[in-house]
Parts: sequence; C-alpha cells; structure tokens
Amino acid sequence: MHAARGSTTRRRVLEVRPEAPRWRGDVLAVEEPMEIRLCPFGAQKPVRVAVTMRTPGHDFELAAGFLFTEGILASRDQVRFMSYCTDPELEGEQQYNVVNVFLRPGVALDPERFHRNFYTTSSCGVCGKAALETVHTRGIAPIPMGPLQLEADVVGRLGECLREAQRLFDQTGGLHAAGLFAADGTGQAVREDVGRHNATDKVIGHAFLEGRVPLSGSILVVSGRASFEIVQKAAVAGIPVVVAVSAPSSLACETAQAFGMTLVGFARGDRFNVYTGHERLRASRAEVTAGR
Amino acid sequence: MHAARGSTTRRRVLEVRPEAPRWRGDVLAVEEPMEIRLCPFGAQKPVRVAVTMRTPGHDFELAAGFLFTEGILASRDQVRFMSYCTDPELEGEQQYNVVNVFLRPGVALDPERFHRNFYTTSSCGVCGKAALETVHTRGIAPIPMGPLQLEADVVGRLGECLREAQRLFDQTGGLHAAGLFAADGTGQAVREDVGRHNATDKVIGHAFLEGRVPLSGSILVVSGRASFEIVQKAAVAGIPVVVAVSAPSSLACETAQAFGMTLVGFARGDRFNVYTGHERLRASRAEVTAGR
Repeated sequence: MHAARGSTTRRRVLEVRPEAPRWRGDVLAVEEPMEIRLCPFGAQKPVRVAVTMRTPGHDFELAAGFLFTEGILASRDQVRFMSYCTDPELEGEQQYNVVNVFLRPGVALDPERFHRNFYTTSSCGVCGKAALETVHTRGIAPIPMGPLQLEADVVGRLGECLREAQRLFDQTGGLHAAGLFAADGTGQAVREDVGRHNATDKVIGHAFLEGRVPLSGSILVVSGRASFEIVQKAAVAGIPVVVAVSAPSSLACETAQAFGMTLVGFARGDRFNVYTGHERLRASRAEVTAGR
Repeated sequence: MHAARGSTTRRRVLEVRPEAPRWRGDVLAVEEPMEIRLCPFGAQKPVRVAVTMRTPGHDFELAAGFLFTEGILASRDQVRFMSYCTDPELEGEQQYNVVNVFLRPGVALDPERFHRNFYTTSSCGVCGKAALETVHTRGIAPIPMGPLQLEADVVGRLGECLREAQRLFDQTGGLHAAGLFAADGTGQAVREDVGRHNATDKVIGHAFLEGRVPLSGSILVVSGRASFEIVQKAAVAGIPVVVAVSAPSSLACETAQAFGMTLVGFARGDRFNVYTGHERLRASRAEVTAGR
C-alpha cells in the first residue's frame, strides 16, 4: 500500500528493451481523490463541493485555488482556516483526502454555484460563446494592458524554466506543472499534479492565500496544452499572460482574446506562437505592426 | 466565427523566431461544450446528464461511449436513436452541441447514477481503494487472461501506429487520440479530441454502437498519460490491454491490476514498461519469470 500523502510512489516494472527485459523499480506519480468541503460558520454539517483526482501535496492551496477560480470564494479574508478531515468515521490515510475549508462569520454562500453548469446559459444554449458569457456574468472583467511587457527571449525559455523548476518531473515523467513567473523570467511559484487544471489551481491558490491576487504582474506557464478551463482560471486571477508549452484550443484563444490576455503556445526555445495580445511583446512590436 | 462542427479552425498567429517575427495562418483544435441528454421513451422532457468540453466530430459515439463507460447504458439495444437537438429555442450551431439519446420502451434509468460521485463510498470514505471498489460494485468483473497474447515488437510500435492514424495530429499538435488495435497491431478505430477521456469515450462508443463490446480481443492505445479514468473506462469495455505513450499514475496501475489488465507505459519504439499483467506478453515470458 503506498502512502497516500506522498506525491510519488515506487513500483516494480518490467522494462522491455532491445537487450533482455529486466525488472526494475520505477517511480510513479500518485493519483488519489480529494474532496473539498465548505464549512460555513456555525453550520452543523460541511457542504461537499467537489471531488477531484489529484496528486497529493499542496492540498490546501488546491482547495483554495479551486474555490477561488470557480467563483465560490472571492478573498482569503473569507477563510477562517483549513484542515484535513477529523471525521472519526474516516480511516487513517483517508483523512488526508478530505479538506475542510472553514469560513468566517458572515460569509454567505450561493448554493447555486455548487450546481451551476457554467457551459450553459439559462436559455439552454450550449456553445463556447455561452461559456465565455457566464465568466463575464460572474463579474470577471477584461485585464487592462498595464505595465507588464514581454521580452521575446524570456518568453521563449519559460517552458524550460518551468521544467527546471519541476523537482519531480524527471523522476516520474507523469506530472503536469503550472508556474507563476515575473516578466523577467524569475520564478515565483511552481506546482505539480497529474491534472493540469489542478496544478493551475494549486499555484493560483498559493498566491490567493498569500493575498497576491489579482496577479497583474505575473505570467502563468503550463506544461502541455492550454484549454478553456486554464485560460478561464487565469482570467479570474487577473493574470495577463498565459504561456503553454504545447497548443492552445480554439476556445482558449477566444477566451484569452475576450479578456484582453496574451496567449502564447509552443514555447520551446527561440520560437513560439503568440495567439492573442501580441501588444504586450516589447521587442518586436514595431516589426509586427509593419508586417501585418 | 468559426464553424462549430469542424474539428479544426484557422487563426492568424504571430510566430516569433530567430529571424524577424511573422504573421501566418495556424490550425487549432476546436474546443466546444457538448451536452448529453437522455430521453426515456414517452417522457415529456429529456434529462440532462453531462456537459463535456470536446472537439466536435463523432459526437454520437462520444455520447454513447460516455453513457456506457459511466454505467448508465449497458447495451446498444437500449438506444432507440440519437439526434442533435431540435429544440427551436437553440440557435443554429448550438443545436450541434446538444445530443439527445432516445431510449427504447422499458429501459429504466437509475437517477442515482446521474448524481453519483464514484470516488466516494457511502461511509464518506475518499481514497483510491474506494474509487476502485465502486467500479467493482457496478458489476465490472476482472478480465480473464483469455487468448490475447502480446508480441513485444508490436507493443513497442503501437504509439507510432496511433500517431500515424491521427489524421489531424500533425496539423494542430493539440489533439489527444485513443485507438483500438488488434494483437497483431492492425488498427480497428482511432478517435481524437482535446480531452483524452473524450477520445477514449469516442472510440469505445464506436465499438459499443457496432455491438462489439466486450472488446476482449482489443488493445486500447492512448496518447499521453494513463489515468484512473482511462483504465476504468477500458475495464468497463472489457479491454484487456491499455498502452499509453507516456506515464501511468499510481491509481491507473492499481486499477489495471485489480481488473486483471495489462498496462503498458512509455510505448516509444523498441522499449516500453509493463506495469501490470506482463503474463500477456508472449516472447519474453520465460526470461521474465527467470529474472524476477
């Protein structure tokens, strides 16, 4: 039985190769469910909000980041404290798979939020535009151009910076990462998970709990692809720039554009693609305008 | 406005590179929400089951595969027909984002299934073991060893076979794929999506609608990583072997082991890792037993 609290676990694996196959130890990323519960002040019972399959580690940041980016929490001042479950019915390691978020007196919860389906509108419409619209109606505003300026040579190496910062990456090859970086490429925080959306929630949750949102001076870098969900979470956190190591989806681009964000894809060294918001890119601005 | 029905869309993108940056056309994978609705025979209103962010294409297979692997449908005989929404309130392209699944007379639905949370047990336990247990309690049995035997040279090139079969991959770089292959490496079906779980549902749904489940003679090959969710879906479809191009998670391995499945990771040519069920691997069986 592996320890539920570790981020990795060891397992015997048969390695097939041109030489004779051999048994050896391998390191795997742990995947375990985590339940997030909200505990309003004075309430008898907590409210179950979500269960996500995640890699253990930074669980409180994951809970806070999820609740913030999904629009259930607006400020860290609403949180009294967080704890693993102390329910006596839960056996040992399971307690570490339930996070209780205790709210301060007077923090009201909109129960609609727990069952909302943010891809659909009230008129039963289902499309990308409707998904975008519901982010707008949550009060998330476009991000102003602001002082953050991007240097091409910094942007190009952010994917590599993220990889270097991934303590675990080379061990398991199985973990996604999300990192916050300053415009000069300085790392601010990096978090890992089997799920990209969880890694994003962890790193945004980290900043949320430190009182650093909106993150108007930060760049979010994600391993792999950029989906609607990732860009939406960045928009909620006020992050002006999202850099993905791989491709963005159509709706990721439309979301970034709608919220005035810069979206970069295929950030792999000295070349990358700017899908939206190229105005934040300093060096090539004149050339770009001329070349359009 | 892009066409909601296409799998890809074009967008102008600024390519930054060692030479001067240039504007060029780029092909993106489309990501749009799709809602699955169940329509019991004679019912006035359909039941909304799920909304998933997907790449348009093979939508009926996606709906069928989702309903099957989530335990809501057991056989294609339960389905009368499927159609895009004809709700007059839905505007043009949105109709293609809602799939109605019409059930035959007498097909009963367990409404519990729609709100079930399959990562938790009734005693409020939350852990990987509980997730596994609920798959067992759905009546999914371990897969017998059976006649399917794996050749090392076939397994090693399945990742490449999947990639070759991906019509779209080289255009967007943004699509996951799932494919069904015979033990000799012959392709049976390949489907793509921005989400790996959707690609898996599509390819399993394809076989489900053709009456080919359980898929006891097939290998499921997935681009990227193998998660609990992917292995669980394969178990429901009776697929004895799952091959991932990248790493499996801890819970993916535990699930494969619990259901008697063979799980292969890092299938990249002449070397790969066998995490569970190496007994299905023919050539090296003797060596393996000796070397343990």
